[in-house]
Amino acid sequence: MRDISPEESQAAEIVREAFTETCRLFDYKLMEPSSLELFETLAAKSGQAIKDEIYYFKDKSNRDLGLRFDLTVGMTRYVTSKRDLSPPIRLGSYSSVWRYDEPQYGRYRWFYQWDAELFGPSSPEADAEIIEFSSSLFRRLGTNPLIAIGSRRILESYITNKCGISEEPKVLDMLRAIDKLSKKSVDQILQEYSKSFSRDQLELVAKFAQLRGEPNQVSKALSESEIEPTPLLEIIDALKTRGVSDAILDLSIVRGIDYYTDMVFEAFDKDNSRLGSLCGGGRYDSLPAIYGRPELGATGVAGGVERAVLAYKIKRKETERIFVAPIGKEAKVRIAASSIASSLRRGGIPAQSEIVERSLRKILEAQSALGTRAVVIVGERELAYDSVKVKWMKTGEEITLKISELETVLQSSA
Amino acid sequence: MRDISPEESQAAEIVREAFTETCRLFDYKLMEPSSLELFETLAAKSGQAIKDEIYYFKDKSNRDLGLRFDLTVGMTRYVTSKRDLSPPIRLGSYSSVWRYDEPQYGRYRWFYQWDAELFGPSSPEADAEIIEFSSSLFRRLGTNPLIAIGSRRILESYITNKCGISEEPKVLDMLRAIDKLSKKSVDQILQEYSKSFSRDQLELVAKFAQLRGEPNQVSKALSESEIEPTPLLEIIDALKTRGVSDAILDLSIVRGIDYYTDMVFEAFDKDNSRLGSLCGGGRYDSLPAIYGRPELGATGVAGGVERAVLAYKIKRKETERIFVAPIGKEAKVRIAASSIASSLRRGGIPAQSEIVERSLRKILEAQSALGTRAVVIVGERELAYDSVKVKWMKTGEEITLKISELETVLQSSA
Repeated sequence: MRDISPEESQAAEIVREAFTETCRLFDYKLMEPSSLELFETLAAKSGQAIKDEIYYFKDKSNRDLGLRFDLTVGMTRYVTSKRDLSPPIRLGSYSSVWRYDEPQYGRYRWFYQWDAELFGPSSPEADAEIIEFSSSLFRRLGTNPLIAIGSRRILESYITNKCGISEEPKVLDMLRAIDKLSKKSVDQILQEYSKSFSRDQLELVAKFAQLRGEPNQVSKALSESEIEPTPLLEIIDALKTRGVSDAILDLSIVRGIDYYTDMVFEAFDKDNSRLGSLCGGGRYDSLPAIYGRPELGATGVAGGVERAVLAYKIKRKETERIFVAPIGKEAKVRIAASSIASSLRRGGIPAQSEIVERSLRKILEAQSALGTRAVVIVGERELAYDSVKVKWMKTGEEITLKISELETVLQSSA
Repeated sequence: MRDISPEESQAAEIVREAFTETCRLFDYKLMEPSSLELFETLAAKSGQAIKDEIYYFKDKSNRDLGLRFDLTVGMTRYVTSKRDLSPPIRLGSYSSVWRYDEPQYGRYRWFYQWDAELFGPSSPEADAEIIEFSSSLFRRLGTNPLIAIGSRRILESYITNKCGISEEPKVLDMLRAIDKLSKKSVDQILQEYSKSFSRDQLELVAKFAQLRGEPNQVSKALSESEIEPTPLLEIIDALKTRGVSDAILDLSIVRGIDYYTDMVFEAFDKDNSRLGSLCGGGRYDSLPAIYGRPELGATGVAGGVERAVLAYKIKRKETERIFVAPIGKEAKVRIAASSIASSLRRGGIPAQSEIVERSLRKILEAQSALGTRAVVIVGERELAYDSVKVKWMKTGEEITLKISELETVLQSSA
């Protein structure tokens, strides 16, 4: 399994900060659900099949455990167990998850997700708030997001009423098939689900799921099929009120996970559609019910941090580092250099002193390669006058300064 | 296993920020080693016995894996595998670890650690930098830290030369025994290690390990026992240069983990000694050697985040939240309220709108309990004049404002 390198950490930190700030503005409290869950909690909605997709093991007390595969399940278990919390309950989490599937490009077995969940009313306003949250996060990251909204309930009602498939496992298989249409051929899918539906049925639903575009157009087409466009139109209206105008309806949005019950959505980068979906979410009222709180509605969104990093151009911060270099090995000079670095740090300036005994030439070479802002050169001659030299690495310019002036000059040039 | 609640997350966030800022000042790059390691990597230094103390399991390909029990092992494995990094290499990590021991008060099986590691020269300056880092972090958290420094090498040389114990496993058992002296009785310890040393030997070493206090005094006592006080005195001198004066020598500091080779230290809160050690670290040159880079020295420090949270008084931030409450159920009023909340958020003001249909009285009650700063009341009468009421929750005072003035007034009163 991979390590998260300093370069990756630095990029992810920007996503974390944007997410934390969005949580602050929308008042979502940050928390983190347990990394390990009882297997039965993880399998509560998805069934035993989930065992193949997660890190599952037995602990030393022979309990069946799994590493969390998402944050939604743990956050829902947490909220349903806290009867003292009064809805609406808004929670956010920025934490890692584990999945035991085959590694693909840009997909890892261990990765970070950001996640926002809203527990309480099953209302279009709640769904709209979660979508506004997502849009607001990606705008903060400098992305131009397009929100595509679908509805599992509408798709399920079409599958049942127009295709005559009513058994729940078969309906779920059809939803999974629609989710896979972009990745697999119709023949492959038919082979996989031969017991659940026919080619005609799949083609009928696939054609219906192609409904995509401006809310008014899609809703007109739905009416023609005698299907109520609720709650999609209410959500679209609520989004307009909230200043989120870039939303379309897209009935092919299904989401891969079984716990969704009605509205589902994904966000895309308008300027870079090849990136795929930046995040996904929806309403999943069935999950709190499974954990014993059927009165609690739930809607939320999650996205992978790697995808969010790719979605915007990271401006690399110029390094601010100052390096304090002693000339020679004399104790007095080395002590002065080390003491100057410590005192700069106490003043809030990132500063390093030499802990290896390199020559000044070697130090300057190394610091130039690292992009260090300035090297403070401490020599015996200048020390006699309580002074040091400062070499600005970009220009090569050197100045001589009193040590007492150093902090002010470095701070004002930062 | 527990969840990390919003209250705990909020407190931990302050430690994370202080650690991140300290890393910035000392130029330690943040990274995160893999959460899962091959069991042989985790056992490289500690041997098979570590299996009892970690989450160990086989994955579906029958590989032996374990969840990391610290960050040092993974960071060292990472650095030794990256031959393109040129020393000194400074890394920091703020991540969680897993341990399978019995839960105790304030100890969990899953918890966060902060960790800073310096790979390169095996010099007193490098050790001093790590100690300065620790001191600087705790000062930033408002703590008054005392640093207690010991030396495994000195203790080992005493065990070998004065007690005649020279086999490595027995020497290690003696070190473990000294580490346990504060928690267990001599009889319990003798029973556990009956094969490695006698009562006389344990008492002799235990007495020597009581050497504790001002560096000059301890060093004098060491000289009387014909033991060289290196590198302890050099580290103390380097610390003085760096402005860290609150350091003592304490030969009973051993640290529980097997990879340390010489200097070991812990930090304590002078104003609250009952807290126990706030962090611990030391030099562990043997670990890079095991992973194939014997030329790389290593020194570092790590601490539990919970302990750091306890070490300082958290000032709870006053909530900044604004709540926008519509009066009644009329669509026009509700739309205005929702739109005002969104526009406040775009202006950087944390604001919530009503997604449940509660009466104004209920809303005011709930927001008062939550400590909300102000409730913006949107009613039909005021809307006719593009106005709203603002109720300051602390004083109960109400004012009427133009909607266009709202953002400025809320921002200036924050």
